Amino acid sequence: MNKPSKLGIGVIGTGRIGKLHIQHLSQNIPDADLIAICSLDTKTAETLALQFNIPKVTTDYKSLLTNPKIDAVIVASSTDTHVEICQAAAEEGKHIFCEKPITLDLEQIDETLAIVEKAGVIFQVGFNRRFDVNFMRVREDIVSGKIGEPHILRITSRDPTPPPIEYVKVSGGIFLDMTIHDFDMARYLICDEVVEIYAVGGVRVDPQIGEAGDIDTVIITLRFQNGVLATIDNSREAVYGYDQRVEVFGSKGMVTVGNPKTDTVTFSGSQGSRSAPLPDFFVQRYKDAYLTELQAFVRCIQEETQPLVTGTDGRVPIVMGYAALKSLRENRPVLLSEIS
Amino acid sequence: MNKPSKLGIGVIGTGRIGKLHIQHLSQNIPDADLIAICSLDTKTAETLALQFNIPKVTTDYKSLLTNPKIDAVIVASSTDTHVEICQAAAEEGKHIFCEKPITLDLEQIDETLAIVEKAGVIFQVGFNRRFDVNFMRVREDIVSGKIGEPHILRITSRDPTPPPIEYVKVSGGIFLDMTIHDFDMARYLICDEVVEIYAVGGVRVDPQIGEAGDIDTVIITLRFQNGVLATIDNSREAVYGYDQRVEVFGSKGMVTVGNPKTDTVTFSGSQGSRSAPLPDFFVQRYKDAYLTELQAFVRCIQEETQPLVTGTDGRVPIVMGYAALKSLRENRPVLLSEIS
Amino acid sequence: MNKPSKLGIGVIGTGRIGKLHIQHLSQNIPDADLIAICSLDTKTAETLALQFNIPKVTTDYKSLLTNPKIDAVIVASSTDTHVEICQAAAEEGKHIFCEKPITLDLEQIDETLAIVEKAGVIFQVGFNRRFDVNFMRVREDIVSGKIGEPHILRITSRDPTPPPIEYVKVSGGIFLDMTIHDFDMARYLICDEVVEIYAVGGVRVDPQIGEAGDIDTVIITLRFQNGVLATIDNSREAVYGYDQRVEVFGSKGMVTVGNPKTDTVTFSGSQGSRSAPLPDFFVQRYKDAYLTELQAFVRCIQEETQPLVTGTDGRVPIVMGYAALKSLRENRPVLLSEIS
Amino acid sequence: MNKPSKLGIGVIGTGRIGKLHIQHLSQNIPDADLIAICSLDTKTAETLALQFNIPKVTTDYKSLLTNPKIDAVIVASSTDTHVEICQAAAEEGKHIFCEKPITLDLEQIDETLAIVEKAGVIFQVGFNRRFDVNFMRVREDIVSGKIGEPHILRITSRDPTPPPIEYVKVSGGIFLDMTIHDFDMARYLICDEVVEIYAVGGVRVDPQIGEAGDIDTVIITLRFQNGVLATIDNSREAVYGYDQRVEVFGSKGMVTVGNPKTDTVTFSGSQGSRSAPLPDFFVQRYKDAYLTELQAFVRCIQEETQPLVTGTDGRVPIVMGYAALKSLRENRPVLLSEIS
Repeated sequence: MNKPSKLGIGVIGTGRIGKLHIQHLSQNIPDADLIAICSLDTKTAETLALQFNIPKVTTDYKSLLTNPKIDAVIVASSTDTHVEICQAAAEEGKHIFCEKPITLDLEQIDETLAIVEKAGVIFQVGFNRRFDVNFMRVREDIVSGKIGEPHILRITSRDPTPPPIEYVKVSGGIFLDMTIHDFDMARYLICDEVVEIYAVGGVRVDPQIGEAGDIDTVIITLRFQNGVLATIDNSREAVYGYDQRVEVFGSKGMVTVGNPKTDTVTFSGSQGSRSAPLPDFFVQRYKDAYLTELQAFVRCIQEETQPLVTGTDGRVPIVMGYAALKSLRENRPVLLSEIS
Repeated sequence: MNKPSKLGIGVIGTGRIGKLHIQHLSQNIPDADLIAICSLDTKTAETLALQFNIPKVTTDYKSLLTNPKIDAVIVASSTDTHVEICQAAAEEGKHIFCEKPITLDLEQIDETLAIVEKAGVIFQVGFNRRFDVNFMRVREDIVSGKIGEPHILRITSRDPTPPPIEYVKVSGGIFLDMTIHDFDMARYLICDEVVEIYAVGGVRVDPQIGEAGDIDTVIITLRFQNGVLATIDNSREAVYGYDQRVEVFGSKGMVTVGNPKTDTVTFSGSQGSRSAPLPDFFVQRYKDAYLTELQAFVRCIQEETQPLVTGTDGRVPIVMGYAALKSLRENRPVLLSEIS
Repeated sequence: MNKPSKLGIGVIGTGRIGKLHIQHLSQNIPDADLIAICSLDTKTAETLALQFNIPKVTTDYKSLLTNPKIDAVIVASSTDTHVEICQAAAEEGKHIFCEKPITLDLEQIDETLAIVEKAGVIFQVGFNRRFDVNFMRVREDIVSGKIGEPHILRITSRDPTPPPIEYVKVSGGIFLDMTIHDFDMARYLICDEVVEIYAVGGVRVDPQIGEAGDIDTVIITLRFQNGVLATIDNSREAVYGYDQRVEVFGSKGMVTVGNPKTDTVTFSGSQGSRSAPLPDFFVQRYKDAYLTELQAFVRCIQEETQPLVTGTDGRVPIVMGYAALKSLRENRPVLLSEIS
Repeated sequence: MNKPSKLGIGVIGTGRIGKLHIQHLSQNIPDADLIAICSLDTKTAETLALQFNIPKVTTDYKSLLTNPKIDAVIVASSTDTHVEICQAAAEEGKHIFCEKPITLDLEQIDETLAIVEKAGVIFQVGFNRRFDVNFMRVREDIVSGKIGEPHILRITSRDPTPPPIEYVKVSGGIFLDMTIHDFDMARYLICDEVVEIYAVGGVRVDPQIGEAGDIDTVIITLRFQNGVLATIDNSREAVYGYDQRVEVFGSKGMVTVGNPKTDTVTFSGSQGSRSAPLPDFFVQRYKDAYLTELQAFVRCIQEETQPLVTGTDGRVPIVMGYAALKSLRENRPVLLSEIS
């Protein structure tokens, strides 16, 4: 039944994103053969295995790495396990899709990327937004020269509700947890490196976030090597929904990505007209992008090409996060070169 | 002070539209010299004269027609006076701008148009919507071939609130009072004549309108000589405001006119997003069009050209109104040729 | 592996829609167990079976009807086979999902519905648009009273390109092939029956369509029992894409369904701003609706409830199609009661 | 003819904005009586006087200040004359409407404001955007609490084309010439004072601007006393037109001002849909705001109330401009308190 061209895949981690990957690999990627899943949450794993006809379930990720039927692993376990698993997987010659962030320790990232490179395996980082059809089209419009030379980039990225305080405490802070996606988006769209960052922020949404040592509202300025200037704003709570917009302004025009609406219905009454709300959150908004990134990963392995999100792409936004944090603390623009 | 090139103008009637014309002529049309106004409502007329520095006020329209300083008259008095005034004005060699409808009596229209033609004066009818910048652009897109050969025309035209019942009783009915504008718009945009009309209607808004012998909600189908099919829908009450939209669909594309909003503010809250309301009613929506039509009238006289709204353009929509009425009563499509 | 609660399903027909149903049943409806598929196109059927792990493939639909593992059949074969298959399926006690139209022969429909009723099986007709999230919300807004009493319904439904002339010749004509969906939508949204229809039409897109005895451009007026007036316009060719809009105007407001765009990207250049194109055609536009209708069918069987699209709902739009045709030919409004 | 309640007004300066004020005072503000205009450009002044029936024309502004019929002056002459004229006008007891900027010399501003205060005359600065209906509504939504506590403000303000290089050289630089409006808007909307500014910028549009010692593309971060964070972006050249948008994000929602379009026409063709362009530039975009600000000025005098734009409102944006300039030069956030 299993054609030789199919790629054997194992998934490590069965949290929210792990489940999504399992579903996509089982249902929507004909070239993928989901051989095994690994989770400490045995019950969830077994339910998933039954639902999606997955042959093997384990609590030991190493058994996946030594399984000869498995060509590639999806690392969707908790962040603190990424480095160990990725290094072990590379050493077993498995291709790796690793959820973001690889880790927040830059030294460990460098070590991991070195091992990956030596092993010669494909390594893709889970910056799913790059695969959103809207952002892909904007990048095309930039790369094709449609907007001319880019001058200004504006990213708005606001969550509908803050995460639980317990999560905030271990998240690494808003820059490394939330803005990290926008840092990646900025590099992705402008196709260039940021040299300097200035960040301002405050606790506007919930004092508890401040007590946990974090902030919930930020505006960040980026200066790119090629002269493009960018501004990012984040909030942990937009009551009107998950707000994810981008605008790139250039010498020949401007291209924007608006928020998709959940439907196309408009009601006009005596109080004006009202249109549909925004998507709830990222799973809804980036539903297709999550699938597309896995399809792209499978294709990279099949065609032995470089993934759209490399190890370096996984590293740089973390450097940017630290630069933003340093900028916030010292209230001054910080060069990325200041972060080792 | 009065340069020879200025056009001497008299306005007859100081109702809502008369006042608007007086204001425009006084303030916004440098080539016009408002010499005199005529109204039975002496008080209003005198207030206007003081406000706008108008030299003469009279209750006798004939004194305007014999005034040698007056080159043209604006006939904005009540409909039942149009024929008498227009005929007298033509015989005095004055150019005429006549508010719609000229009259509802087709024979009298024909008589008037014959007198006007013999006198060789400019005669423009007050179908102001033709001068709305949006509809003008749509017509350009049709005439220029941008949408290819037109196939389907859709007009939506709904008032915010029904007129007083006393007005309904003498209005001539919805087709001759309200749809008449849409009949004109259809001819204007398609640049062709309608051959057949089918109308359905009912009393949905207010039973009193039915008791007054009228209807308040209609859908009309038009068949043009050139094969274009059109649909018009009207209502006497759209709670969300004055709704005036047009859509022309052709072999190479579609062009639409949406409703202007009163501002560009959008509020996004937990209940979705809400944008501004529509204009209240025609004075607000067609503010600029009312000015443009008078400017065009002045220019026609100066340049001795044909107005954009001719006597025939004033006549045909009334024929269409009678055809619609006949169609409604007999529940069958009616040829315009059936109306004498 | 097969849990007892799962519903055994067979699919008859592997054309465009058949394939879609097969994919949905295999991948997205956990409660469905796709047991067998039937097609005269053996090659396609076998490819599908391999791709989706379907146990049985046959060219004889009767073998599906006698298979005890099969609880329900999806009839997606060519229209001329619907009646025979549906009747046989009902007699075997299988629940039936039948693509539209059941048949164009009203007598045969009545016969089939009688057999279905006697057999007591669930019978759902494939008017997929009812399951589109946008139209469902509009219906909610009508049923809930949000727009007050409905007065006017406007439906625009235009295909991106005309079908092949060979198809046009056997399609039953535009009213029964294309408008049939809009007739259903009108009844669905207004929750009432149409009493009279007036249709005008012409050949505007392609003379070959005329030579095949059909038309390609129509405007239809509907009068509902409850007094609502409706207008439908259709074209076989909208160069800007698949155009499917609805507007319901009532005493308390208006609700509209606009076309979804393929992305949220807008480009602003020196020539104005340009947004994304419309969906290509129905498979793209109604992707989710096709899945939702099958999910609803499965749920009806499980919960023994009435489907959202009954046999009567499958019959009435065909009566309306004949009334429209008669109206077009005789150029007069036609009562539905005139169609036996 | 001149009613006693009318306000006698003199206009100094007949450049682009001066002409606009003259036209508005003559045509659209019945309570104003335009007594005299003053200009070194005699020819323009005389043409305007003839066109608008203005009794007096002079090249000596002092003759206006001593004219007892004149209650108030509009100072629309070149910036370098503002201080002298304003001080002289105040000393003559004339109310003053002064175009922005009062001057770029903070000491002179302070001196002028002191003289004005001592004289007890009304002094309004020409920040016209405050009177734009859209921004007024946004401010209402903020003040009324509709968006809750404001968190983030975003202003985009881009000109369609850069000014002539000769103008750039004497303009005071982009912050004092262009961003000054956005600084004012930020204070106006947030109803609070900015404490710190960080600015980045570059020469992206035209190298000549750089050679003239200026920049053409900037992103500015503002920190308000009340904790609101703001970002402003400017460009001297947006090829798609005059781009003026605002977004205020708060705890209960977001309110945005979009760009008005020049019409409501949309064309849908095979390449997607295209809507109308933006207004050309400020005269078109803020047409009504220019009138409203003068009406407000007249009303302030009549009702002896404080203007919406005070002398302090004229001063603070200049301080902000110097802070931005210092920030750009020293590449660090600058406190407003650092600017004397």
